[in-house]
Amino acid sequence: MGTQSLIAMREDILDVLRENPGFRAVDDDLLYLFRAWFNRGFLDIRRIDWETPAVVLEKLIEYESVHEIMGWPDLRRRLQEDRRCFGFFHPVMPYEPLIFVEVALTNEISSNVSELLQEEVNEASPASYNTAIFYSINNCLEGLRGVSFGNLLIKQVVDKLEREISSIKTYSTLSPIPNFSAWLKSEVPQLELQALTENSKEHIRGLLINPTVEKMQDPELKDTLLSLCAYYLLKVKSRDKPTCPVARFHLGNGATLAKINWLADESENGMTQSVGLMVNYIYDKNTLAHNHERYEQENTVVCSNEVKQLVPA
Amino acid sequence: MGTQSLIAMREDILDVLRENPGFRAVDDDLLYLFRAWFNRGFLDIRRIDWETPAVVLEKLIEYESVHEIMGWPDLRRRLQEDRRCFGFFHPVMPYEPLIFVEVALTNEISSNVSELLQEEVNEASPASYNTAIFYSINNCLEGLRGVSFGNLLIKQVVDKLEREISSIKTYSTLSPIPNFSAWLKSEVPQLELQALTENSKEHIRGLLINPTVEKMQDPELKDTLLSLCAYYLLKVKSRDKPTCPVARFHLGNGATLAKINWLADESENGMTQSVGLMVNYIYDKNTLAHNHERYEQENTVVCSNEVKQLVPA
Amino acid sequence: MGTQSLIAMREDILDVLRENPGFRAVDDDLLYLFRAWFNRGFLDIRRIDWETPAVVLEKLIEYESVHEIMGWPDLRRRLQEDRRCFGFFHPVMPYEPLIFVEVALTNEISSNVSELLQEEVNEASPASYNTAIFYSINNCLEGLRGVSFGNLLIKQVVDKLEREISSIKTYSTLSPIPNFSAWLKSEVPQLELQALTENSKEHIRGLLINPTVEKMQDPELKDTLLSLCAYYLLKVKSRDKPTCPVARFHLGNGATLAKINWLADESENGMTQSVGLMVNYIYDKNTLAHNHERYEQENTVVCSNEVKQLVPA
Amino acid sequence: MGTQSLIAMREDILDVLRENPGFRAVDDDLLYLFRAWFNRGFLDIRRIDWETPAVVLEKLIEYESVHEIMGWPDLRRRLQEDRRCFGFFHPVMPYEPLIFVEVALTNEISSNVSELLQEEVNEASPASYNTAIFYSINNCLEGLRGVSFGNLLIKQVVDKLEREISSIKTYSTLSPIPNFSAWLKSEVPQLELQALTENSKEHIRGLLINPTVEKMQDPELKDTLLSLCAYYLLKVKSRDKPTCPVARFHLGNGATLAKINWLADESENGMTQSVGLMVNYIYDKNTLAHNHERYEQENTVVCSNEVKQLVPA
Repeated sequence: MGTQSLIAMREDILDVLRENPGFRAVDDDLLYLFRAWFNRGFLDIRRIDWETPAVVLEKLIEYESVHEIMGWPDLRRRLQEDRRCFGFFHPVMPYEPLIFVEVALTNEISSNVSELLQEEVNEASPASYNTAIFYSINNCLEGLRGVSFGNLLIKQVVDKLEREISSIKTYSTLSPIPNFSAWLKSEVPQLELQALTENSKEHIRGLLINPTVEKMQDPELKDTLLSLCAYYLLKVKSRDKPTCPVARFHLGNGATLAKINWLADESENGMTQSVGLMVNYIYDKNTLAHNHERYEQENTVVCSNEVKQLVPA
Repeated sequence: MGTQSLIAMREDILDVLRENPGFRAVDDDLLYLFRAWFNRGFLDIRRIDWETPAVVLEKLIEYESVHEIMGWPDLRRRLQEDRRCFGFFHPVMPYEPLIFVEVALTNEISSNVSELLQEEVNEASPASYNTAIFYSINNCLEGLRGVSFGNLLIKQVVDKLEREISSIKTYSTLSPIPNFSAWLKSEVPQLELQALTENSKEHIRGLLINPTVEKMQDPELKDTLLSLCAYYLLKVKSRDKPTCPVARFHLGNGATLAKINWLADESENGMTQSVGLMVNYIYDKNTLAHNHERYEQENTVVCSNEVKQLVPA
Repeated sequence: MGTQSLIAMREDILDVLRENPGFRAVDDDLLYLFRAWFNRGFLDIRRIDWETPAVVLEKLIEYESVHEIMGWPDLRRRLQEDRRCFGFFHPVMPYEPLIFVEVALTNEISSNVSELLQEEVNEASPASYNTAIFYSINNCLEGLRGVSFGNLLIKQVVDKLEREISSIKTYSTLSPIPNFSAWLKSEVPQLELQALTENSKEHIRGLLINPTVEKMQDPELKDTLLSLCAYYLLKVKSRDKPTCPVARFHLGNGATLAKINWLADESENGMTQSVGLMVNYIYDKNTLAHNHERYEQENTVVCSNEVKQLVPA
Repeated sequence: MGTQSLIAMREDILDVLRENPGFRAVDDDLLYLFRAWFNRGFLDIRRIDWETPAVVLEKLIEYESVHEIMGWPDLRRRLQEDRRCFGFFHPVMPYEPLIFVEVALTNEISSNVSELLQEEVNEASPASYNTAIFYSINNCLEGLRGVSFGNLLIKQVVDKLEREISSIKTYSTLSPIPNFSAWLKSEVPQLELQALTENSKEHIRGLLINPTVEKMQDPELKDTLLSLCAYYLLKVKSRDKPTCPVARFHLGNGATLAKINWLADESENGMTQSVGLMVNYIYDKNTLAHNHERYEQENTVVCSNEVKQLVPA
């Protein structure tokens, strides 16, 4: 199929672009074309569940890179009654999700993704949930890099869930902080912050070499790392916006940085990339547009008082 | 819907473009966008028949401008077993045909469209037909002017019919000659052709003032007009290609100008625009590509000997 | 198709049953089979609108026998935004409605079907309607006589409309009284009722010979006929239930006989069968089950006080 | 859903019928109803492949009892390009296969099911296959016991494949012989057959206690067992028809018993139930009807000469 071949071609071009800057013009043309082809009017939002064709479902397993899907039973669990999955599809590629988001329906704002992924199905009626946790969002086709789908998908899913389950009042992510450990490693030695004694730095260095759940039982370490994480998300910037790409994405959408969670992702990947910390960004329709404006025009990071108070002097 | 609004907007722009050349840039942008959006990979070919939603069928009545559809019974007749109708649709406008073609399945190359439109249903099995007559093709959305669909549609319909009804060996149009009368009126007085005596010119002038079937019984007039029509189609050119827009279209697709038919469209419209003459263009897969090349590169008009011999010295 | 052939066969059998009682056993077997095949679990309720295939729509024109559909424009009007049409379909005959009901969305209980059929589309938002008028219900396949669909269809349509348009509070029919004139003609001469003077009888006789709207302007006649109609519906019985088949149907479903309307159907058919009178039966979910019980077990006809007071002493 | 509940109810009834013969009447009624509901006119044949909803696919894993499906990768392999799977569905239970058949497209009549289940995908074009092997057929719903689907399904699949892949000339099963070992165990000691020496009997007894592939390398044993199997299939009867239920089914459909295969199913189940033997029954449209007649009316078992010659004197 023409469309898919062109997307695959651009994936190849992106791979070699650095060494072959001559391909830049082709890449620009393709991106321009893809933005026309994959405009919002052409995208179908579809719920993905156990009635979805297997050829689509296996792509979730393939493309999920935030919290790996461990085979079909794990996939099935993520599609049960207290979970939702939605994706964007294009009419000419009906079996190819462009992006998908996984949502857990809960009764509180989840602070631990490992528990979320392992818990038993909650057989309660949908009407009893009050919270929707967006715990994973994945772009699928590398060849469509630069065509943005995420903002629109999250907002359409919020709309759909509002209509389907009116008891849900809170829409929050449970998001990774992908480069937090890398930043700790490179920047902490030089940092001059009240919260950061030489002893703390020593502790953190040890943790970074081999991050384990056991080492994180130290309450002082907890205070220090939460402070540093708040500092990283709020104060460490590139071109006036937070350096953390996940924060940039959600804050740019108008979400509020609501909470930093301790020991929230105990998987190897979670411990390695962010010493187990995760963030809740809240999507509140009443403030999204205003937050988005302030973020774009004044670089304001909207966050809760709880997070604000964590930032070290 | 966004797409339809933009198409409607361009229709408005096209209406006022002559007086407002400043809109040219917007028009160019929209056309560029529409060519990306309505590329062949995104088009669905669909058969239109009596199982099609009424909301689509009423658009055939609205958009048919070659041979007007006189209400629902006439429409129904055109969708019966010895007829076919196919259209292109775009996935975001499932009830909006972009172009459609009407086909009659017959046992000879039709030379008279009035008979074709009036004849009773032929209850014969599809396997008994040997000819498909494309007797009407209509673009639907003025706002998509400049995005070409016709060539592709005809070729896909030929492919579909070949697979469905292997007994069909000949694919021919029965096409109008929209400006033939206008050309006769303005050019014939000055023409210096052997075939054209003063007497003939007088006859033709009379006919053009009030074209009736009765007046056309004169055999000399018949010879003269067929000659003039062949001359018009083969020799009268703009930028090296035939001036007749229907001829340009089919010859550009690679079809062969096979026959000019006398008293082929006795409707008021047919008598007025082309003194009742119509043309068969034959689509033969074996010669399409080669004819197309010769037409594009050498301006060659491929026609049958029968037509060639009509051209006056 | 097997199913349709069997239904057609039973239609033929029913035609000749009276003269050929030997077919009774075959008829019984077929009816038994059809009741198994067309059980409620197998029926699909589908909305019929302008997006429905023409092959289904033309069947509405064919089968509508209560208020004839005068061609495609009339049909289209009955499917517009302030109207609804629903039918039952069986999965093996997707283009064959088994029964369909036509509904008008209004702001009051309609008392005149001629107006309903002629009025312009009401462009108001669906949310502004407070009443749904069931103005026509038609069984389609004579071969399925004895398999009952109507009760279930009306109740499912009420459920669907409740969910779709929560502003609708009243569900009422506007129903014919098919044999009222025939009863008047045969029974009135013998009737001994206070309301019925010799003068009245004379009037009615005249009206029945040639029922016109003009003759019905007489206010005394109006009082008399409304009284007689109430008497006919409430007091004239066969096997302890009302003789009027339409009354039997709706009262058996648990509806309430709410109102008798004067000059409600001025069509020739309406004037002939019931001197223009029509009835509103109200479907109120709170009382349906209870009314149905009382009707079945105690032969109680549940009606409004307004109707009750019309019955002549 | 009503239908599924009734099917589940009958499943429960069948479980307890032996101890509760009083349920016989209910069972009879349900079976009568199901035969009306699941008549051939109501069944949809659908191809099951990787584009089928997962909720259907997991039922294949659940219901496959002839050759167990070892998880999703095994399932996927059985749905690839050189395999086919078809099932019957009823319109009111779209996610519930009633019966399904698994087919391998090959270039010879397969004689070994273990190889068939393990071989790599054959990437050849469909047009290159000349044989379709029906290697597994499974009824799904115990509650529908007594409603027969298998004969019809096989014949419709043959029709479908003929139309899709005209190069296929041979339609054969590769079928189990479920009770062959049990029969060997109970009957062989008493059998008086030329082919059966005391030595042979001893061999067979040893094999039945612990059937392994190694023990079967003995060529004399092979001759003896093939003979006994032919004898079992052709001569051992109940009510004048073969005792083997699989043979009864295929011969009753009109198939021909073409070949008995040695070491054809080396799985534990295959070795246990039939010391690894399997049978090819060939479906040849030219002889199906005639064979079926002879089988039903004269109890004739139609078999190849090869099999006939195996029968011991």
